[in-house]
Amino acid sequence: MGKVICVGLGPGDPDLMSVKSDRLVRASTHIAYFRKAGYEGQARRIVEGMLRPDAIEYPMEYPVTTEIHFSDPEYNRVMAEFYEVWAEKLAKLAETETVLVLCEGDPFFYGSFMHLYTRLRERRAVEVVPGITGMSGCWTATGEPITWGDDVLTVVTATMGEEELTRRIRDTDALVVMKIGRNLEKLKRCLTAAGRLDTAWLVERGTMTDQKVHRLCEAPAKVPYFSIAVVHGQGRRP
Amino acid sequence: MGKVICVGLGPGDPDLMSVKSDRLVRASTHIAYFRKAGYEGQARRIVEGMLRPDAIEYPMEYPVTTEIHFSDPEYNRVMAEFYEVWAEKLAKLAETETVLVLCEGDPFFYGSFMHLYTRLRERRAVEVVPGITGMSGCWTATGEPITWGDDVLTVVTATMGEEELTRRIRDTDALVVMKIGRNLEKLKRCLTAAGRLDTAWLVERGTMTDQKVHRLCEAPAKVPYFSIAVVHGQGRRP
Ligand SMILES: C[S@@+](CC[C@H](N)C(=O)[O-])C[C@H]1O[C@@H](n2cnc3c(N)ncnc32)[C@H](O)[C@@H]1O
Ligand SMILES: C[S@@+](CC[C@H](N)C(=O)[O-])C[C@H]1O[C@@H](n2cnc3c(N)ncnc32)[C@H](O)[C@@H]1O
Repeated sequence: MGKVICVGLGPGDPDLMSVKSDRLVRASTHIAYFRKAGYEGQARRIVEGMLRPDAIEYPMEYPVTTEIHFSDPEYNRVMAEFYEVWAEKLAKLAETETVLVLCEGDPFFYGSFMHLYTRLRERRAVEVVPGITGMSGCWTATGEPITWGDDVLTVVTATMGEEELTRRIRDTDALVVMKIGRNLEKLKRCLTAAGRLDTAWLVERGTMTDQKVHRLCEAPAKVPYFSIAVVHGQGRRP
Repeated sequence: MGKVICVGLGPGDPDLMSVKSDRLVRASTHIAYFRKAGYEGQARRIVEGMLRPDAIEYPMEYPVTTEIHFSDPEYNRVMAEFYEVWAEKLAKLAETETVLVLCEGDPFFYGSFMHLYTRLRERRAVEVVPGITGMSGCWTATGEPITWGDDVLTVVTATMGEEELTRRIRDTDALVVMKIGRNLEKLKRCLTAAGRLDTAWLVERGTMTDQKVHRLCEAPAKVPYFSIAVVHGQGRRP
């Protein structure tokens, strides 16, 4: 009887993978990962050069990414089917094999694997190895600590409505904004309204070889999928 | 000319250290870490058995931990002096040597090293290696993902006032509570007032060999310093 192990790979630099994930990646013969159709996939890119020559790869290609909005019931139907099909395939494989699923960052923090996890865990043994989150990689890249003393940290996604996002930005000490994509202009308006644009940072592809760190007000109009905005807390510091 | 490198060690399991931190820990000859006087120190414990035989250790013993409340100006004075003295010592050492500072979790996330960092960075080259946070280790230990879809995650410390803490717990999808210590009873009251006690978890010493995971309502009255409470988000999941 095999099992499924999902390994967090950390924010991008392969050196930031855990010793455990590193060992599992190098030893595994069945390796699955998500990717956008036609792309290599970020998780797969992190492990480049680490896989066994006889490893069998299972790219799990999203049927949609941003073509259908996630509020559309059709998005839900298509994605549910996709996760169902792959849960079934991996469960079948895991009858006899140990299957490794690669996940960037920490798997349980906004990770796609979570959708397989809830479908697999009743059928097979599933193990999850945590990883360094993208946000840890990004705030470290800014060279400033994120939270001091009793600072409150709020993590939001930029997909949120404008009013609500502004309120959240106002109501926190430290801030992390995930999933920025096409919402950068909206995020700028919210930060401005909350009086925090000046202290906000934008990190593109944190810890990867092409990492970029900008003050958010100087960020380019188009940012890559792997982008995080950060406002540092200013709490107690003796 | 040497430098100071602070390595995040992750939540406790040495296998969850990054490949980079692991390599630096094994290679370094000058190793500093914080600890409570009379204790081994959690950071030092994580690297047990990994240090070079000729490594020189610099335990940095807190002059106070909970004996003086952090709102007392005396706390501030004593701690500022402590950080000042050690910043000076490490800066001196780093004139010629590379000094490794050990930090549990991620150094820039409520880490004590941050107080040395702000004092050192104008004098010496300082590098920080991110780590898996304690909270990632803890939510993974609960076996449930922390954030889905557009969930808001709020991270607070249990040191916060009761009313404010209750408000924060009400106003978030997913919750992480750090620094619980003597505030567990207060935290229970706040979770109860916010109607979320039933879905809260408490993780003691996440990923360490003596890890314990409880529903928070079943947690013992006294919990160790390394304890985190978690309420999972319930966001979008196709
Ligand atoms: C589906 S979430 C996955 C998060 C991941 N599980 C983690 O722990 O960071 C994808 C979002 O993570 C953020 N992200 C993850 N890694 C990043 C990195 N290295 N640099 C910038 N953003 C990153 C981006 O905001 C991106 O839109
Ligand atoms: C001074 S903060 C340091 C946080 C650390 N830098 C991190 O990234 O997690 C100490 C608090 O972290 C939390 N903590 C850190 N590691 C933990 C673990 N493995 N299990 C439970 N709590 C932990 C506890 O709430 C503790 O009071």
